[in-house]
Amino acid sequence: MKVLVLNAGSSSLKFQFFTMGKETMLARGQVERLGSDDPTLLYHRHDGLQHEAKLTIKNHTEALQAICNCLIDPEKGVIQALSDVQAIGHRVVHGGERVTKPTLVTQNIKGIIHDCFALAPLHNPANFSGIEACEQLFPGIPNVAVFDTAFHQTMPPESYLYAVPYELYTKYAIRRYGFHGTSHNFVAREAGIMLGMPYERLNLITCHLGNGCSITAIDHGVVIDTSMGMTPLEGLMMGTRSGSLDPAVVLRLVELGHSPAEVDRMLNKQSGLLGVAGIGSGDMRDIIAAERKGDQQALRARRMFTSRIVKYIGAYFALLGGADAIVFCGGIGEWSDYIRAKIVRKLSCLDIELDEKVNSRCSGVRDIISTQRSRSKVLVIPTNEELMIARGVVDTLAHNPAEVTTGE
Amino acid sequence: MKVLVLNAGSSSLKFQFFTMGKETMLARGQVERLGSDDPTLLYHRHDGLQHEAKLTIKNHTEALQAICNCLIDPEKGVIQALSDVQAIGHRVVHGGERVTKPTLVTQNIKGIIHDCFALAPLHNPANFSGIEACEQLFPGIPNVAVFDTAFHQTMPPESYLYAVPYELYTKYAIRRYGFHGTSHNFVAREAGIMLGMPYERLNLITCHLGNGCSITAIDHGVVIDTSMGMTPLEGLMMGTRSGSLDPAVVLRLVELGHSPAEVDRMLNKQSGLLGVAGIGSGDMRDIIAAERKGDQQALRARRMFTSRIVKYIGAYFALLGGADAIVFCGGIGEWSDYIRAKIVRKLSCLDIELDEKVNSRCSGVRDIISTQRSRSKVLVIPTNEELMIARGVVDTLAHNPAEVTTGE
Repeated sequence: MKVLVLNAGSSSLKFQFFTMGKETMLARGQVERLGSDDPTLLYHRHDGLQHEAKLTIKNHTEALQAICNCLIDPEKGVIQALSDVQAIGHRVVHGGERVTKPTLVTQNIKGIIHDCFALAPLHNPANFSGIEACEQLFPGIPNVAVFDTAFHQTMPPESYLYAVPYELYTKYAIRRYGFHGTSHNFVAREAGIMLGMPYERLNLITCHLGNGCSITAIDHGVVIDTSMGMTPLEGLMMGTRSGSLDPAVVLRLVELGHSPAEVDRMLNKQSGLLGVAGIGSGDMRDIIAAERKGDQQALRARRMFTSRIVKYIGAYFALLGGADAIVFCGGIGEWSDYIRAKIVRKLSCLDIELDEKVNSRCSGVRDIISTQRSRSKVLVIPTNEELMIARGVVDTLAHNPAEVTTGE
Repeated sequence: MKVLVLNAGSSSLKFQFFTMGKETMLARGQVERLGSDDPTLLYHRHDGLQHEAKLTIKNHTEALQAICNCLIDPEKGVIQALSDVQAIGHRVVHGGERVTKPTLVTQNIKGIIHDCFALAPLHNPANFSGIEACEQLFPGIPNVAVFDTAFHQTMPPESYLYAVPYELYTKYAIRRYGFHGTSHNFVAREAGIMLGMPYERLNLITCHLGNGCSITAIDHGVVIDTSMGMTPLEGLMMGTRSGSLDPAVVLRLVELGHSPAEVDRMLNKQSGLLGVAGIGSGDMRDIIAAERKGDQQALRARRMFTSRIVKYIGAYFALLGGADAIVFCGGIGEWSDYIRAKIVRKLSCLDIELDEKVNSRCSGVRDIISTQRSRSKVLVIPTNEELMIARGVVDTLAHNPAEVTTGE
C-alpha cells in the first residue's frame, strides 16, 4: 500500500510518501513559508534526487497540489498517477481525551479536531486545512488522522488531572493531554524489538529531546505519565519554551503589564535555551559550542536543561517502580552524545551506567549505550513519526477494509 | 536567655516564649481574627494552664500588648516584667536572594523585608508590622529576623532560575526562592543527630507536608533544590494550593474571563485537595476519611497528592545521587502513617523499605520508620520552626554580642 503522510503547520506542509510492507520511503519534502510572498517547495526522492522551487501559492490545497505535481512528474516523480496514492495519514496535534488511536477521518472526527482548536490554536486549524485539502484533491481516498495526544490517553486521573477546582476539568477540559505521542509510541515499540521483549512487558522512560522536549513513563506498554500538559509548554526546558513554572510567575508577568498574548509568546517563543543562554539561539548545538568556548551563561542554560531531564527520569523511575530501559530520541537525543552523557552519568545512583565509548560514537543511529551491568538499558533510537503515522494508516484501514481503494 | 518568637500573619499573631539553654518552652499562643470585630487571644502555659479572652484591639501592636500582659500576669504569667524578654525572633516569609541566615533587624534589613512586599504580598507586610510593634513595646531589645527563604539560598542557578528570558530575573527578581526553609533546616539538623552523623555529611530529602507542602534536596548540608518557587504556590499539591501547572493553564483561565486576582485566589485558596476531592475540605484527615468510606473523588485526590510526592522524591534522589535519609515532617508527615505508607511503599525500586509496624505506631513523634536493610533511612521528625527561630536568635546574638541586653 502506498501512503502519503502529511504534517500541516500554520505556514508549512511537510510530507513523506511510503510504500508500506517493506516500509520504504519513496519521497519526502515540504512547502515552507506558506502565506508569505515567497513560499518554496523542497523535494527529496529516495535515490538522492533533489528539487527546490519557488511557488506562487497561498494555501494548503495549493501546496498539496504542488507536492502532487512532483510525485507524478515523469522525471522527478515516484508514481504514475495520483490514483496510486491509496491512503493519506495526517498528523493532528490535539485530539482531546476521546481519541486514543489513529482514526479514519469522518465528519465526527473532523468535529473533534475542530473542538480542539481552543486547546491547540496554532496547530489544529492547520491540520484541519490539510485534511480538507486532501478531501478536495483526493476524492474517495481515505484519510486517517494520527494524533499527538492519542498515545497518552491511558494516563490515570492522578497523572492527567491538575490540582485545580475539578469543574475546570469537566467544564473547560483543563487537564494534562501530553504530546509527541506518535514519537514516544514509535521508539517504545522499537525498544521492544531491540531488547527482544514484547513491548507490553517493558517499563520504559522515553525522552524525546528536540526543539520541543518531552518525556514519558510507559508501564507495560501503557503511558502512565508524561511531561507535557494541557499544551506543549509544560515540563522540560526546550529550545524556546519555558517548560514548568511557578503558576504565580505567569500572574506576575500579567501584573507587570504584559498582555496574556504577550506572555504566551514570551513563554513559547522567547524562553527556554534561547531565553536563558543569551547567545541569540535556542539550538542546542550553538549552546554547546558556546559552552565549550567558556560562555558561563550558555553553561548555565545547558545545566538547567540536563538537570531537569535528570529529575524527570528520577521521578518516572520511582513512579514506574523501576525501568527496563531509558530511550533517547529527537534531534538532541539522537545526535548529542555530550548531552546524553551529562544526563546518564547522573543516574549512577539508580545503578544505571553509561558505556562512554559506545555513547561517544553513537550519532543518529540506534544503539545500546549502557554497559552490560547497567540496571536499566539506555537506548538511542532515531524516531520516525512519519513512518509511525503510515503504520497507523495501514492498521486503521485493516480494521476498516471497506475504505481501502485498490491501487496497483 | 529568654526569647520571644513571633509569627505575624495578616490577621493573626502567633507566639512562643522560650528559655534557651535547655530550650524550654514557657508559653505559647496566638491572637486570632485580628482586624475583625471579635479578635481572641489563646494562651497556653507550659504547665497546662490555658486562657482564652475576647479582645477589643485592632492591630499587631495591640495584639502584642495583650500577649505581653499575659506573660507578666501574676497568675497566668511566666515572667515578672517585660524586661525579662531578652530578644525577639520574627518569622519573616520572604528575604529575597540576599538573606541567607537569621539576621539582626536593622534599617537595612527592614528595607529588604519591605523590598520583598511584592514577592510575598500577604506575609511580608504583616511580618514587618510585627517587628515595628516590638520596636515600640520593647525599645532596646534586639529583634532578629528569621526568613523562610534563607535556608534555600544555596541553590545553584540551574535550580533557582526559570527557563524564561534572563532579564526577568535581573529586572524583576523572578526566580525560585523556596519556602518552609526554617522547617527543612530544623529537621535536617535533627536528622543528623538521629543518625549520629554530622549534618554536613548527609544527603537528605526533607518532606514538609502540612497544609502547605514542600520538599527539599539537601546535599551535604546545602540545599540544591526545593519544590516551592518564586511563591509558595509551586510544586506539590497542597490543602488549597494547586502546586505546579502548565503555565498555559493560567493564561487559559485569564482567557476564560477570570481576572488575575481571581486566578490567584482560585489557585491559592480553592485548589489542591479542596478543589479536587469535592468534599468541601482540604484537610487530609477529611480526605482519608472520605476515601475510606469509598468516595472515588477523595481517593483520586489522595492519589494525586501521594503520586506527586513520590515523583519529587525520585527526582531529588537522582539529583542528589542518592539519599542517606528521607525525612517526613509537618502535620501530615508527622501524623499520617497512611500517607507515609502510600509514599514509601512506592520507593522499593530505590531499595527503600518501610517498616510497616514501626510506621503504623508512629504518630507525632520522631522515629526511624524504614527497615534495617533499607538503602535510605526514612525518618519522622516533628518540626519546630519556633524553636529553630529561637536558636537562630541565640546564634545571631552570639555573633553580635553588643546587642544583647542582660536579663536575670
